[in-house]
Amino acid sequence: MADVTIDRATLEAFTREAFEKAGMPAADAAVEAEVLIWANLRGVDSHGVQRIPMYLDFIEKGWMNPRPDIRVVKESDAVLFMDADRGFGPVPTVRAMHAVIDKARNVGIGWALIRDVTHQGAMGYYSEMAAAQGMAGMAIVSSPPNMAPFGARAAGLHNSPIAYSFPAGRHRPITLDMATSVAAGGKLDVASDKRIPIPTGWALAADGSPTTDPDAARILLPAGGAKGSGLALVFQCLTSLMANSPLIVPVLRGGERVHLQNSVVAAIDIGFFIGLDEYRELLDETIDELKALPKADGHEEILMPGEPEQRMLEARTRAGIPLPPGTVDKLRETARRLDLTSPV
Amino acid sequence: MADVTIDRATLEAFTREAFEKAGMPAADAAVEAEVLIWANLRGVDSHGVQRIPMYLDFIEKGWMNPRPDIRVVKESDAVLFMDADRGFGPVPTVRAMHAVIDKARNVGIGWALIRDVTHQGAMGYYSEMAAAQGMAGMAIVSSPPNMAPFGARAAGLHNSPIAYSFPAGRHRPITLDMATSVAAGGKLDVASDKRIPIPTGWALAADGSPTTDPDAARILLPAGGAKGSGLALVFQCLTSLMANSPLIVPVLRGGERVHLQNSVVAAIDIGFFIGLDEYRELLDETIDELKALPKADGHEEILMPGEPEQRMLEARTRAGIPLPPGTVDKLRETARRLDLTSPV
Repeated sequence: MADVTIDRATLEAFTREAFEKAGMPAADAAVEAEVLIWANLRGVDSHGVQRIPMYLDFIEKGWMNPRPDIRVVKESDAVLFMDADRGFGPVPTVRAMHAVIDKARNVGIGWALIRDVTHQGAMGYYSEMAAAQGMAGMAIVSSPPNMAPFGARAAGLHNSPIAYSFPAGRHRPITLDMATSVAAGGKLDVASDKRIPIPTGWALAADGSPTTDPDAARILLPAGGAKGSGLALVFQCLTSLMANSPLIVPVLRGGERVHLQNSVVAAIDIGFFIGLDEYRELLDETIDELKALPKADGHEEILMPGEPEQRMLEARTRAGIPLPPGTVDKLRETARRLDLTSPV
Repeated sequence: MADVTIDRATLEAFTREAFEKAGMPAADAAVEAEVLIWANLRGVDSHGVQRIPMYLDFIEKGWMNPRPDIRVVKESDAVLFMDADRGFGPVPTVRAMHAVIDKARNVGIGWALIRDVTHQGAMGYYSEMAAAQGMAGMAIVSSPPNMAPFGARAAGLHNSPIAYSFPAGRHRPITLDMATSVAAGGKLDVASDKRIPIPTGWALAADGSPTTDPDAARILLPAGGAKGSGLALVFQCLTSLMANSPLIVPVLRGGERVHLQNSVVAAIDIGFFIGLDEYRELLDETIDELKALPKADGHEEILMPGEPEQRMLEARTRAGIPLPPGTVDKLRETARRLDLTSPV
């Protein structure tokens, strides 16, 4: 069965409709749809609409709250501490990102800790919100364990991703959105769908032995050994521990695995330090010089962080979003479940 | 020739005396000595007293300013922008770290950008200043290029290190202090001193070809490929570009390589979000559980970031600091040059 191609507007309208039907307020359903389609447009399909049935399951189980009472726990001119009440990640996080952008405009930086959020989606969406306002943006999220700390053969850390964005001028913005594992979990799913082995060093099986079978892989391995492992612990310290919502220790003590996350988003106002136009020019020049360096064997060009995704965005904006058979099935299942008309 | 062992106080007194004689105010010389000995005590000898002759050369060349006019360019309740006037890294950076700790106590976070600083020393010193005050600490520095961006066979980025620290309770603080390259430059020096090859994948020779000869190695390679490369670019964007002191582009355009750095230090007040004692307990429990995980082959225990250095600190505090022959020579040369009595 071949992929089915769908245009952005149709897919987004269906996604919005589905979340409204599942109980979200219309404005929140629109935010959720926007963040999922953002990922699909950039080729980050692991964080796109294929997640919808899982989210619906989470609502039914009471893990995700479609109508959260999002509240400010504490706030200063620079810092926001928000309780997301198990709301869908994009809703509180977009709100927090707007707040930190405002704070950064006033005092140069804004930093928000978000407690008890559920699945955040692609973190680059939030850091790019800041870049679109002429600021540096940062976003981190952590979850229950899925990665072995350096030296261990069992999961003990989450492969917490971090995203940073910076605005350029002639060039596209820089967006680094990376997991702290060698490979993000989504890459294992892709290998499984394609029935191809994964490289040694990506993951361990449930018993802690190395595996190249994506279906047997249960434990991710940290990027750069002690470095990825150390960063993942650091991100736990900045998010879950700071929020008094530990997600590691209860699981390692044999407790139930809860589907929660804690997150930090931040914005730094470039204009506090340097004229924004000057900054854009400096970043453009840096990109020009880096791209002009001699290439390593096997590399035809030197790509900036986020550049492959932005090229995909341009292609899919023109030609539509291809949905593989598994995702088509998921959208049809969603339509049946919610008594909607499937878009595919 | 065997190592010479020296006690901390004697080495620190000599170092202080040397920097005073080289033109630094007494209080500044004491800060510089403290930061260098801090590294030696932790086994990070690449950032310790063996640097003294290089610093003296830099003073003579006018690159390092022993009596800088450190000034605040701009300041808000949360952010500080400091011009270090080419001062020795530790002097402005300790001052900036004190300032951000004060800001964090008031508004939850403090963030300082330091422009035109010279060699920072070990970045973990600054992040640990925050942890000692019950805060999370962060420190980043960037310099002219010494590392190949992912996909390139020439230097285009600096292997900018980042350090984070967090206070625990029963356990030692967590301090992650890592370069964005596979191996820090100091590890190549150690391999060279020991006349042993370096592993493939650490570095390239001047012509961009892979090498295992530490003496031929000129270009570091990024940790985790695109990940370390992306982080190094991000740290440039947060430091040198933000400070309008670009250190990459002028070198890539064939200009002179200047010995300057730009840096960010930050503190986040844990007490803004959670009781500090609760936080310490949560981090202790996390460390306990991680250390209890089953070990990977070849690992007898699971070490936390900073733990090897803290064990070395305890050992060297008891038994003294061993100085290899090359470092002994450097201290003797320093004594002759400044007309002081060598401590070894």
